[in-house]
Amino acid sequence: MRAVDLIHKKRSGESLTAEELSFLIEGYSRGDIPDYQMSAWAMAVYFQGMTAEETAHLTLAMAESGDQVDLTSIQGIKADKHSTGGVGDKTTLIVAPLVAACGVPVAKMSGRGLGHTGGTIDKLESMAGFRTELSREQFFAQVNEIGIAVIGQSGNITPADKKLYALRDVTATVESIPLIASSVMSKKIAAGADAIVLDVKTGSGAFMKTLEDSEALAAAMVGIGSQVGRRTAALISDMDQPLGYAIGNALEVEEAIAVLQGNGPRDLLDLCLALSAHMVVLGGQADHLEAAEVMLLERLESGAALAKFRAFVAAQGGDPAVADDPGLLPRAPVIIEVIVQQEGYVLHIDAEQLGLAAMMLGAGRAAKDDAIDHAVGLVLKRKVGDSVKAGDVIALLHAREDSPSVEAAMQRVREAYTINGNKKPADKPLLLSVVTAEGIKRF
Amino acid sequence: MRAVDLIHKKRSGESLTAEELSFLIEGYSRGDIPDYQMSAWAMAVYFQGMTAEETAHLTLAMAESGDQVDLTSIQGIKADKHSTGGVGDKTTLIVAPLVAACGVPVAKMSGRGLGHTGGTIDKLESMAGFRTELSREQFFAQVNEIGIAVIGQSGNITPADKKLYALRDVTATVESIPLIASSVMSKKIAAGADAIVLDVKTGSGAFMKTLEDSEALAAAMVGIGSQVGRRTAALISDMDQPLGYAIGNALEVEEAIAVLQGNGPRDLLDLCLALSAHMVVLGGQADHLEAAEVMLLERLESGAALAKFRAFVAAQGGDPAVADDPGLLPRAPVIIEVIVQQEGYVLHIDAEQLGLAAMMLGAGRAAKDDAIDHAVGLVLKRKVGDSVKAGDVIALLHAREDSPSVEAAMQRVREAYTINGNKKPADKPLLLSVVTAEGIKRF
Repeated sequence: MRAVDLIHKKRSGESLTAEELSFLIEGYSRGDIPDYQMSAWAMAVYFQGMTAEETAHLTLAMAESGDQVDLTSIQGIKADKHSTGGVGDKTTLIVAPLVAACGVPVAKMSGRGLGHTGGTIDKLESMAGFRTELSREQFFAQVNEIGIAVIGQSGNITPADKKLYALRDVTATVESIPLIASSVMSKKIAAGADAIVLDVKTGSGAFMKTLEDSEALAAAMVGIGSQVGRRTAALISDMDQPLGYAIGNALEVEEAIAVLQGNGPRDLLDLCLALSAHMVVLGGQADHLEAAEVMLLERLESGAALAKFRAFVAAQGGDPAVADDPGLLPRAPVIIEVIVQQEGYVLHIDAEQLGLAAMMLGAGRAAKDDAIDHAVGLVLKRKVGDSVKAGDVIALLHAREDSPSVEAAMQRVREAYTINGNKKPADKPLLLSVVTAEGIKRF
Repeated sequence: MRAVDLIHKKRSGESLTAEELSFLIEGYSRGDIPDYQMSAWAMAVYFQGMTAEETAHLTLAMAESGDQVDLTSIQGIKADKHSTGGVGDKTTLIVAPLVAACGVPVAKMSGRGLGHTGGTIDKLESMAGFRTELSREQFFAQVNEIGIAVIGQSGNITPADKKLYALRDVTATVESIPLIASSVMSKKIAAGADAIVLDVKTGSGAFMKTLEDSEALAAAMVGIGSQVGRRTAALISDMDQPLGYAIGNALEVEEAIAVLQGNGPRDLLDLCLALSAHMVVLGGQADHLEAAEVMLLERLESGAALAKFRAFVAAQGGDPAVADDPGLLPRAPVIIEVIVQQEGYVLHIDAEQLGLAAMMLGAGRAAKDDAIDHAVGLVLKRKVGDSVKAGDVIALLHAREDSPSVEAAMQRVREAYTINGNKKPADKPLLLSVVTAEGIKRF
């Protein structure tokens, strides 16, 4: 088998076999197949696409390129979730204890943030003492005992995907649905969950700009799940603004706790309930979504979800009292108002710009090894549909006094807001579509 | 400017500017742009194509990547030719003295053979003493004096094309018409000729399998010529068998001399006359093709073309007597008959197989630095349309007695022939189409 012949085959619109895709991925991992052949192949895939079967074979080959977590020593149907979004996305902090409180075990690996996107691991670490490195045995034991554990990604999960993604990033071959789908799913499959719920963002602020593209990506990922025997569903949600109001690590933990306490923002709660309901159904703890939702609301109202959060924090070394007193979280020394002089309604909030503003304050990393400041970030005071008049505060910056970037961050926040018109824009639904093995259903 | 953005632009079907293409080619030449970006770009070009303008800009950028020969110190409109074919193609040996005899200066660089294709430089060197390395001054002086000189390619002509071609070869991106066209034309443009006539082969034995593809390639090359101010024309000729009867260096020189003496094979003479007529018109020595052809036939009959060949050989250190006594050329010690047991008509002769057979006898190189044997090769005894009966000799191998590959070469020659049927196949025209700046004309 020669890589050049496989590139030629894909270029000609033919499908590669499982054996051929393994040859490519294994050879590339080992360094036997050079970058210049993989980038030509990726560009051929961009133009010719891949069948559902091909995409699944590629995904498995990448999942098998490194460590694969075997969760069989944990009882039950283990559920995982993944979001394609990022800015202000604290859903994992809410969804994980919620579904665990329904009896669905969550044994999850999460990442750190880079650039404008935050990472669940960074958010968790804003709680003093919280450990995100557990041994395999500790990890399994904790899930068996309390139903939930979240750790940082081990060093050698899907190395082929990491290498290929870095190459795609510099060869204009990122925007291929089968390649995106296989990249996401290879990590989820290697992480070992039986049931996977995907949170696919759509809209101008998201990677997929149209509902159709988002549905196609979701269908590709659900298709991979079906092919490899993992129960998979995807929710497509609008992203014309960040979820909730808080952006920044400790600030997002505080907002997540508010949701678990029953007084969080509506959009964040709604998305968390929808994701959780799918996880509870795929996890076998409810027969259908309506039953799951009843169960989830009960776990919120009874305080069972918050109790699960407390147990989770305590098990990983944090102070469980934070669940009742968010004042224990780190606080930025100064809070600065972002004031605008415009009038009208907020039509759109550019989440990426806000993510970059938070990064400039120290909440995120520009480079992989940068340190981050858990206390800083921003809290929105206006969201889409709200009216604004001159002199209004649209957001608060939580900053260090000495930060030289506060001015620039403030400017970015102002630019992130589109304020216009004297007519309140129509409410847009947050959830647009759900994709399961049975098909696509629009709301 | 970033390479990834240019790849993205091409991937999206947009055209790159002259500046952007120079950035890519210069950066790639210097090693600043890595192979993996160029191969992704080449694959995007494969799918999206390039406009005529873009192709011309790419060609110029490649021509400018190395030495460019300035022929202005030679008087007149300098003409060059190029063939996309190879096996048994001795047209340069005939065309160059023919057009020089009509007053069109030929200052030509040629290559050596590799694999199944022969090279003009190797053929010339089969004449004892013939030097193909002249100083720039000797080269110009010789063309000014006798109207003709042919030298080997200098080391640094279009290095960017060499590097890109090697990359395309291993990334399944060879078969792109704008990339093929710019590769050929960059070398011709760097070599400095004012007028360029292209001999484009078509058919199952050629790189371009259909007449349409061959015309598209020809049109792309002629388009580049027009864009960069070089008079260019392309002839498309059928390649369901090699030109003439001889394959191998000295054997081909002998056949070329036969044509100049007026007793060469018809197909070879016809193609040489057609190519030469275009060169004479583009070179400004005749107003139209009919006038050029009259002039060329006169130069053949009068012996002026053969005299020019003599002068050419003498000027570059060879023995001009070879033009009258090909017995002075090196001879292989043994001649072995290739006999077949089939009956029928020859329908097709696979030129590549014959080229490989000649290579096995020592006439060509498997690797770049292999030595070659000028005396060996093969002479066909049957061509397409000829009838064959069991026991007939279809070809003669000119070999060294000690060659271990004679048996294998004989087998290849037999396999190269398609002999079938009891009805003589219809005569097919050799010349199919001509492409000039005015358009495409089929014969």
